[in-house]
Amino acid sequence: MAGLARASCEREATGSGLKPLDVDEFRATAHRMVDFIADYYRDIETFPVRSQVKPGYLKQLLPETAPEDPEGLDDVLTDVQCNIIPGLTHWQSPNFFAYFPSNSSTAGFLGEMLSGGLNVNGFSWINSPAATELEVIVLDWLGKLLKLPEEFLSSGEGGGVIQGTASEAVLVSILAAKNHVLEMSLKKGLSKWSILSTLTVYTSDQAHSSVEKACTIAGIDPQNLRVLPANGSTNYALPPEIFSKALADDVAAGLLPFFLCATVGTTSSTAVDPILALGTIAKEYGLWFHVDAAYAGSACICPEYRHHLDGVELADSFSMNAHKWLLTNFECAALWVKNSNLLVTALSTQAEYLRNKASEMRMVVDFKDWQIPLGRRFRSLKLWMILRLYGASGLRAYIRNHIEIAKHLEDLIRADDRFEILAPRTFALVCFRLKPLVGDLDNGYRSNAELQEAVNSSGSIFFTHTVLSGVYTLRIAVGAPLTEMRHVDKAWEVIKEHAESLQLKR
Amino acid sequence: MAGLARASCEREATGSGLKPLDVDEFRATAHRMVDFIADYYRDIETFPVRSQVKPGYLKQLLPETAPEDPEGLDDVLTDVQCNIIPGLTHWQSPNFFAYFPSNSSTAGFLGEMLSGGLNVNGFSWINSPAATELEVIVLDWLGKLLKLPEEFLSSGEGGGVIQGTASEAVLVSILAAKNHVLEMSLKKGLSKWSILSTLTVYTSDQAHSSVEKACTIAGIDPQNLRVLPANGSTNYALPPEIFSKALADDVAAGLLPFFLCATVGTTSSTAVDPILALGTIAKEYGLWFHVDAAYAGSACICPEYRHHLDGVELADSFSMNAHKWLLTNFECAALWVKNSNLLVTALSTQAEYLRNKASEMRMVVDFKDWQIPLGRRFRSLKLWMILRLYGASGLRAYIRNHIEIAKHLEDLIRADDRFEILAPRTFALVCFRLKPLVGDLDNGYRSNAELQEAVNSSGSIFFTHTVLSGVYTLRIAVGAPLTEMRHVDKAWEVIKEHAESLQLKR
Repeated sequence: MAGLARASCEREATGSGLKPLDVDEFRATAHRMVDFIADYYRDIETFPVRSQVKPGYLKQLLPETAPEDPEGLDDVLTDVQCNIIPGLTHWQSPNFFAYFPSNSSTAGFLGEMLSGGLNVNGFSWINSPAATELEVIVLDWLGKLLKLPEEFLSSGEGGGVIQGTASEAVLVSILAAKNHVLEMSLKKGLSKWSILSTLTVYTSDQAHSSVEKACTIAGIDPQNLRVLPANGSTNYALPPEIFSKALADDVAAGLLPFFLCATVGTTSSTAVDPILALGTIAKEYGLWFHVDAAYAGSACICPEYRHHLDGVELADSFSMNAHKWLLTNFECAALWVKNSNLLVTALSTQAEYLRNKASEMRMVVDFKDWQIPLGRRFRSLKLWMILRLYGASGLRAYIRNHIEIAKHLEDLIRADDRFEILAPRTFALVCFRLKPLVGDLDNGYRSNAELQEAVNSSGSIFFTHTVLSGVYTLRIAVGAPLTEMRHVDKAWEVIKEHAESLQLKR
Repeated sequence: MAGLARASCEREATGSGLKPLDVDEFRATAHRMVDFIADYYRDIETFPVRSQVKPGYLKQLLPETAPEDPEGLDDVLTDVQCNIIPGLTHWQSPNFFAYFPSNSSTAGFLGEMLSGGLNVNGFSWINSPAATELEVIVLDWLGKLLKLPEEFLSSGEGGGVIQGTASEAVLVSILAAKNHVLEMSLKKGLSKWSILSTLTVYTSDQAHSSVEKACTIAGIDPQNLRVLPANGSTNYALPPEIFSKALADDVAAGLLPFFLCATVGTTSSTAVDPILALGTIAKEYGLWFHVDAAYAGSACICPEYRHHLDGVELADSFSMNAHKWLLTNFECAALWVKNSNLLVTALSTQAEYLRNKASEMRMVVDFKDWQIPLGRRFRSLKLWMILRLYGASGLRAYIRNHIEIAKHLEDLIRADDRFEILAPRTFALVCFRLKPLVGDLDNGYRSNAELQEAVNSSGSIFFTHTVLSGVYTLRIAVGAPLTEMRHVDKAWEVIKEHAESLQLKR
């Protein structure tokens, strides 16, 4: 689409009535879309990073009903340029520092295209053996890069599977654990509902909200979810003794602890729970131990960060999101389990219309039984492509570059007396704030929230916040694929300028 | 990739070390991928429809670890051609008649590309307002095409949302219903675990296995899932009086009925439950009424099929899969609810790091609270593109064409004395079998299973089976985007030839 007239947002009726899947039309229009997307990346720094539209903006721009007759691709692309792009928050912008990154890449996009183009639905092996087998192989590859213990690989009872998100990874882990503990307890003659009412889950108050949501979905009593405090004294890592005490208290109270979720790289501050110590305790009590490394898992392909996973050998399940920081377009959450039978027992259903010889003979893996939905995309293509087209060395260099950039930002902030760092930078997230002025009654809450909103409203960069030990904390997560040192330098200038402007206003 | 040498499967090291997201590399390689995929569609009829590989085939072809250094796109595409494509079962082949279709289309693929290219994660409105707002608008468009009652549209308390699959649609519906009935019952002073142990769900034995799976996940007692019998006397639709009786019995036994899932277009035979009658009973008892039209929903955009949805005005939730038969590449399951607050109450979680002004002011929809995962793709682009580029008229013509083709096949089968039709053809699925020979001890089970396996092993076509009233039933689902009358004529010839050959062998 070189020459898509960005100035002209008028639509002309150009409906041609595409055939469903005509090869020539497919080829021609898909080439146009490639150029449209390439141009988007070329221009991405010219857009405000956080969308500046107001709620309800799009309803005013689009018709109330679908067209009766076909429209043309020109019309649609004009609408994308004029009406959709202004409503985007640009996650791939080099100036996007919010939440955690959600990487796009050339290789990831190629994998996404191929997956969408082949459009096979590999819920059972037979429905595209390559979709299942490549996933098994590529999860082994990634597991080896992470130096996961052999038990997580496909050679034994374990193996990896791609879930949509880390939320689904923790949910299926809880469901497998719950089913297993229930079966074990029923053998001891306990009644089902009395067991269910006592099932207890442990995590820290720094864990992702998806743990709580998974408990809700799985029917764990909210009163039996222990959200244990982790504070600045341990850099927001969960202290083993707090876990240990909670366990002992619960057991004494007649509850049945069955699941621990620890985090390597928490969302608020990338804290790393001491998984070796926590895992050791969890095993003493017979809990299922899940390690969520959604964000930081990617860094652990570098030897110098791998020690954060020490203790993962005690885990029953481990997950990381290749779609965050490992150049794999959304979605691609990798989950490894040591005993896949426990997943399958909890999640399999049988239906005559799904039966087939390969499955009946138990010669194959059917990933439908490792996940919530039935259908599934051929997502391993993306992961395979990023591993091959960047190579392990290229991916490590990519991670290290972001960490260098984040270190640089941390140095800039430390060198400025008006600001302070609020949690140690372990990976590529920097937590900081504008120090409260003397007499500030809310400990810098409002001034930092205002600074954040002013910067984000300017469209120059987009970043988000958290609260650490009651303190409003600004977060700069370096990790977008196009971010270079110069972008962070610029971001820091923008933040300082807005801070100065706000201070002057008071 | 014109000229990808299909004959040459040798790999050469061509590693170039792509940059993460360089515009020129992106453009050049994505153009190559377009041609690769277009060539795949061009050649699709030359591949065996069902993959002919043996379990474990791919492990022998790929290395055991990821490459340390980058490889080249040529190598990867050669591997796709030589090692992956033979392991595919070709869902987009015009000779694919298995399960239900899983459509790819030019417009659907363009939407998929754009979604993957922009790669925004629209879990909250602020993270790309266009992603949320387009989804609201396009689900209204599709709801209007289906003539859903106003209460399912976004103008009031209701609205539509895209889930990954129908499995997730029924799961979130059950979770919302469960949470609601629990809250209501707690107000009456009943104890939580006693309520939970009595929650009872109703569906027919023809409903999709995802209903049972959703109950398992949501913690419904398996003993309280009523899988009610529907047989040939009602063309496999659930008789209202059976539902009514089960309800009355359960209430008398002290159970708490709370959820009914009816199906419009069952997986085995596309049976249509009488949703007006069932819904009327469900409302008398205060149940949440979910209508699953995963397959047949697409046909209901045609006025002559819309009557199958009469009674949907009594439903609390309704879902259909645009990714099955409505040209939208996988995945895109549309779910509409009348009261979205009940979904949000059941599924929302709060975390400081997700807070933002637009959400706090309740001015916007945050779809993270309408689904299981947190993150979400911009999937409405696909649906928007198919609605615009084909138009309502184009989509209706597409559906009608497949139904015509299926009618034609039905006529061919009826005209052949050796075969019989086993369930009425309502949409584009034909259920039939080879009649058992005199003295056949298993009522045609083995002869039909053998016929199916022989045909599928030949690679000419791929079709699956079910069991209806104990009878092994062959299913031909017409609905792949490239299927024309000639493909079904050929399929019928292939089936007859194999039938003759098998009969001769006895």
